[in-house]
Amino acid sequence: MSAPARIPAAVVNGAGYGGIELLRLLRRHPVFELVEVTARSDAGRPVEQVFPQFSGLDLTFSARVERAEVVFSALPDDAAVETLPALVAQGRRVLDLSAGFRLHDAALYPTWYRYEHPAPALLEEAVYGLAEWARERLPDARLVACAGCYPTATLLALGPALARDLIAPDVIVDAKSGVSGAGRSLKLNTLYSEANEDISAYSVRGHRHQPEIVQALAETPGAGRPAPRVTFIPHLAPMTRGILATCYGSPREGVTEDDILAAYHEAYDGEPFVRLTSEPPHTKWSYGSNRCFVYPVIEPQSGRFIVISALDNLVKGAAGQAIQCANVMYGLPETLGLPVEGVYP
Amino acid sequence: MSAPARIPAAVVNGAGYGGIELLRLLRRHPVFELVEVTARSDAGRPVEQVFPQFSGLDLTFSARVERAEVVFSALPDDAAVETLPALVAQGRRVLDLSAGFRLHDAALYPTWYRYEHPAPALLEEAVYGLAEWARERLPDARLVACAGCYPTATLLALGPALARDLIAPDVIVDAKSGVSGAGRSLKLNTLYSEANEDISAYSVRGHRHQPEIVQALAETPGAGRPAPRVTFIPHLAPMTRGILATCYGSPREGVTEDDILAAYHEAYDGEPFVRLTSEPPHTKWSYGSNRCFVYPVIEPQSGRFIVISALDNLVKGAAGQAIQCANVMYGLPETLGLPVEGVYP
Amino acid sequence: MSAPARIPAAVVNGAGYGGIELLRLLRRHPVFELVEVTARSDAGRPVEQVFPQFSGLDLTFSARVERAEVVFSALPDDAAVETLPALVAQGRRVLDLSAGFRLHDAALYPTWYRYEHPAPALLEEAVYGLAEWARERLPDARLVACAGCYPTATLLALGPALARDLIAPDVIVDAKSGVSGAGRSLKLNTLYSEANEDISAYSVRGHRHQPEIVQALAETPGAGRPAPRVTFIPHLAPMTRGILATCYGSPREGVTEDDILAAYHEAYDGEPFVRLTSEPPHTKWSYGSNRCFVYPVIEPQSGRFIVISALDNLVKGAAGQAIQCANVMYGLPETLGLPVEGVYP
Amino acid sequence: MSAPARIPAAVVNGAGYGGIELLRLLRRHPVFELVEVTARSDAGRPVEQVFPQFSGLDLTFSARVERAEVVFSALPDDAAVETLPALVAQGRRVLDLSAGFRLHDAALYPTWYRYEHPAPALLEEAVYGLAEWARERLPDARLVACAGCYPTATLLALGPALARDLIAPDVIVDAKSGVSGAGRSLKLNTLYSEANEDISAYSVRGHRHQPEIVQALAETPGAGRPAPRVTFIPHLAPMTRGILATCYGSPREGVTEDDILAAYHEAYDGEPFVRLTSEPPHTKWSYGSNRCFVYPVIEPQSGRFIVISALDNLVKGAAGQAIQCANVMYGLPETLGLPVEGVYP
Repeated sequence: MSAPARIPAAVVNGAGYGGIELLRLLRRHPVFELVEVTARSDAGRPVEQVFPQFSGLDLTFSARVERAEVVFSALPDDAAVETLPALVAQGRRVLDLSAGFRLHDAALYPTWYRYEHPAPALLEEAVYGLAEWARERLPDARLVACAGCYPTATLLALGPALARDLIAPDVIVDAKSGVSGAGRSLKLNTLYSEANEDISAYSVRGHRHQPEIVQALAETPGAGRPAPRVTFIPHLAPMTRGILATCYGSPREGVTEDDILAAYHEAYDGEPFVRLTSEPPHTKWSYGSNRCFVYPVIEPQSGRFIVISALDNLVKGAAGQAIQCANVMYGLPETLGLPVEGVYP
Repeated sequence: MSAPARIPAAVVNGAGYGGIELLRLLRRHPVFELVEVTARSDAGRPVEQVFPQFSGLDLTFSARVERAEVVFSALPDDAAVETLPALVAQGRRVLDLSAGFRLHDAALYPTWYRYEHPAPALLEEAVYGLAEWARERLPDARLVACAGCYPTATLLALGPALARDLIAPDVIVDAKSGVSGAGRSLKLNTLYSEANEDISAYSVRGHRHQPEIVQALAETPGAGRPAPRVTFIPHLAPMTRGILATCYGSPREGVTEDDILAAYHEAYDGEPFVRLTSEPPHTKWSYGSNRCFVYPVIEPQSGRFIVISALDNLVKGAAGQAIQCANVMYGLPETLGLPVEGVYP
Repeated sequence: MSAPARIPAAVVNGAGYGGIELLRLLRRHPVFELVEVTARSDAGRPVEQVFPQFSGLDLTFSARVERAEVVFSALPDDAAVETLPALVAQGRRVLDLSAGFRLHDAALYPTWYRYEHPAPALLEEAVYGLAEWARERLPDARLVACAGCYPTATLLALGPALARDLIAPDVIVDAKSGVSGAGRSLKLNTLYSEANEDISAYSVRGHRHQPEIVQALAETPGAGRPAPRVTFIPHLAPMTRGILATCYGSPREGVTEDDILAAYHEAYDGEPFVRLTSEPPHTKWSYGSNRCFVYPVIEPQSGRFIVISALDNLVKGAAGQAIQCANVMYGLPETLGLPVEGVYP
Repeated sequence: MSAPARIPAAVVNGAGYGGIELLRLLRRHPVFELVEVTARSDAGRPVEQVFPQFSGLDLTFSARVERAEVVFSALPDDAAVETLPALVAQGRRVLDLSAGFRLHDAALYPTWYRYEHPAPALLEEAVYGLAEWARERLPDARLVACAGCYPTATLLALGPALARDLIAPDVIVDAKSGVSGAGRSLKLNTLYSEANEDISAYSVRGHRHQPEIVQALAETPGAGRPAPRVTFIPHLAPMTRGILATCYGSPREGVTEDDILAAYHEAYDGEPFVRLTSEPPHTKWSYGSNRCFVYPVIEPQSGRFIVISALDNLVKGAAGQAIQCANVMYGLPETLGLPVEGVYP
């Protein structure tokens, strides 16, 4: 078999945590060839000078994309909505890690993101990039709005139960995230001395991922039902990477744990990056890996349905997800270039 | 005013984390005078030799209690149920940090603790030591079964809402604990390399604190109602100290956030160690302190009632709680010798 | 005995980590009465609103000191040199936690701190506040330049050996500090995701504490010798609090470990806040405490002298040190209001 | 080019941290094919059941090696010296991660390891496996005693300066290690609550890696000089992975920093896994990678030579080193199957 042709790829905003992770993964990808990396404030500097962990990487941060056919954007959402439409118009295929194109309803942006969306037509066109749910639409996509880290953990956890109507459409998601999810910009609450030895909830009155989760659950493959009621409470945990989503629901009458397990096995036994577990999953299992671990159970004291998922917010929750989507987009093996086993311990 | 007479006090099993914290706090208590500390395997060794952080403390670990009038026990529950009845019979007043005497119904012990309780009569007599709820019974108590760390966080969070029937008696408690809650004995899952950079749920099919929470909530002051349905899911978070309990419930029809806030202010404005907060609390605020921070809210998207509490599992969740109970027991000012402000950052 | 009169005290810049720790300690001090706290950007806001861990503290951040007799300043050094001379001139006694008045030689400020010192006369007058070395001069001091965190650890470690000429005046100090030493201002390298799971050296070509250490060692009580050669290499360790200084030197010919131990016992057996240990000390022993642990040894393979010290950079290395100096200044018991046992674990 | 034939490989004791890391790396190695994994206490259990992070790995722990041609042993040294000679005698090529065969002089084992070495002949034959120094001897080796984690960091740091006689043969190594270096067995000092927020020195009176470092430095390529005097002080830092070695020496008269840099560039510019840096290296740069970062400098205040190295103790300090040696052993590209960029942050 002849080697596949290389496809020139760019990372936009390679200086944040999502961008750094894209660099790490794309650098070793056998088909996508990293030809340019942008970073506004570091343009002109060699990547290895800014990030010595990439020592030997022969790339210099540039100001804009010029050569790439496929573009992975790690811009924040407000910059993404301004920047990416032009790249799409140039004929490049774009995978956006931000929330800039995730919500179909433009009217939600002023409420949740505090701006009028400048490209509402692309909101309709963009494919919501949870690879497991989007395989049919990805091959034709021009713009992929990759699923957020919390939504990925939540949707993979709750999807099978809601899609098969095994639980009532009324769920609670208690999610815990590592600090890297808050990005590399300077904020008081992500200083080491503030975040270390601390756990707290935040955005309790409404987090931007709540409407994204509601929208996606309403579109769960096989669902066709009204959007579920979703209480979503995120927490900041003292670790760099990882999301654990502990989700609570009420089983439909007569539904047993065996029914639940059968549904999850049916959904996930063929998935390369979703693993059912027989014990509560640890975020550490997924450190540096593109895997999501899922553990559904009916808690015997209260009869409540509980499903817990664990993933690495920067891999399956960001850079890995985007590459997985791009693999599908280009008809490549879905696992190409993606880390499977986590770094443990 | 003359200084109060000193009351000779002992710590039983001073070599675990609960015991060490009792030493730290009792050492500076103006009335309870630390006269003996036991530790089976370290008997005969000076405390400062085993724990150099207590350098200068003129006490040697002994094998048994001989002189103390008031005894603080940090034994594990199975040792506590064997050891403490004799101390009570000798006329000493005992505050037990373990779960050995917390459940009133002896039949629960074989199920949850895997032994027949050897002193069921004391189960009826023991006062459940959540200081805020037990003030009337403590002055006459011979044996106080101090509330567990998770139950303390849960009861202080949910108590006012359930007691005043502001929410339905059906709640979910998603609790996160630091690793010190698992004690100082050697276990694989509490090794640094295992617990660091990791968060996971555990005891998902049933944790021993669930029946304790159910029992206590059924006895909430002013309640007199059937026990609520409680789903309790604990998590191990990568930090040494701290418990955060995120509790979920459904408001009764017509109940507003103002009603909720009024009830919590009524319950807690006069409490020295419970503080209402206007933002989600951080466990770090309570580090080394006897305080519990409580934040009740109605989440606007879903209309769900959420109340979050934060405390230090070794202080308000263990040693501090016991001393607070002992202060009440002896008619001392309730805050005597107890740390208020946490060590921050 | 009648209670001592309260002395009105202020904290200047109570919003940084040094200032917060001053608040924690002064709030419970039996003589110094915290009457005002300044913080430029938070002036007008109640302290408990900015720092909920101080919930119940009835103080509002103000813009300037007006009533205090004794002033504890946690300003950065460049603000301290501008602000504190006026307070001294007003007749207040000032304890400065910064480096603004530590170096006697004004010519060192342009080199190490990049500004001309605006008050060189005060440089001569200021007492270098390492309490253990300054007891004679403190009672008359108007301005105390409290010793830095690294210098405190280094001087208490090396002082006895150098003062008694037991080692050659040529030492290496390999120091490791927790992240809180870098303060509460926003910097990339103190973000949680950057500092967690990382250790690195910094300021390898020259750290500002090097000349301070050299100056102080030249003035070691009983020394009267030329300044030693000092290589000082600080490291940032992934923890919030704590400094460990591992110091290396060469014993003078014939000097034995017994000689060393005798000298250290002589120096420290009467010290309330310096403890000799019989095993390498842990920073954790000093968490939240004003103690410094010191362990001198001659390493048998190489015959090198090694002395290791451990302390809490925010207590003995900052706020506690200042209060200890102030206690001496006012003729109070030196340990008044200062934490002895650390919070462990 | 045809694909190279697969070489059947085994991991002995795959249940410790070194073994787990071997599994992670060998699983993706294009030539070494992981055909068996032993683990005494887990024999008979599927690997993925014991370590869910390896979910999907179709291997079961076995009791002994039967099919492998090349064996990677992660046994502790005392088990290694008993077990590995037989494997060598069977004609398998063995890479030992332990210290069991590292010291050439059998007389050192009773002193440092407390046992008589049972196979002294193999001590002479074993190749000391620091890949960078052993390329000539590895192709014929039957038994490779892979360099220890601390020695690897130390030798790569100091080697060029000592080999070229740029510094005096009298050095201090102040090393800091993450907790995984202490292994996966249960010890009090590696419990999370003990090791978190703590740094301390250990084995101050003599660590087993000291004679190993001395032996190897005496054999530095190009050296041929007497063994240097080495003071080696290890520290336990609160992180899972990483070693930082800060090494101190005295430049020979007239040696400048330019001379130093020239020597290090000459030594390392062609090395795939050693990178010179222009700022002090961070252990985090090497997380999960086989790289060692080296930063040599002359500190201007004291004129002292300082060289700092950073690596991942489980990769370049253990599993990665072994695979690098095996690649050389079999004439494969030295970087085959080895991770280059670390997981950051």
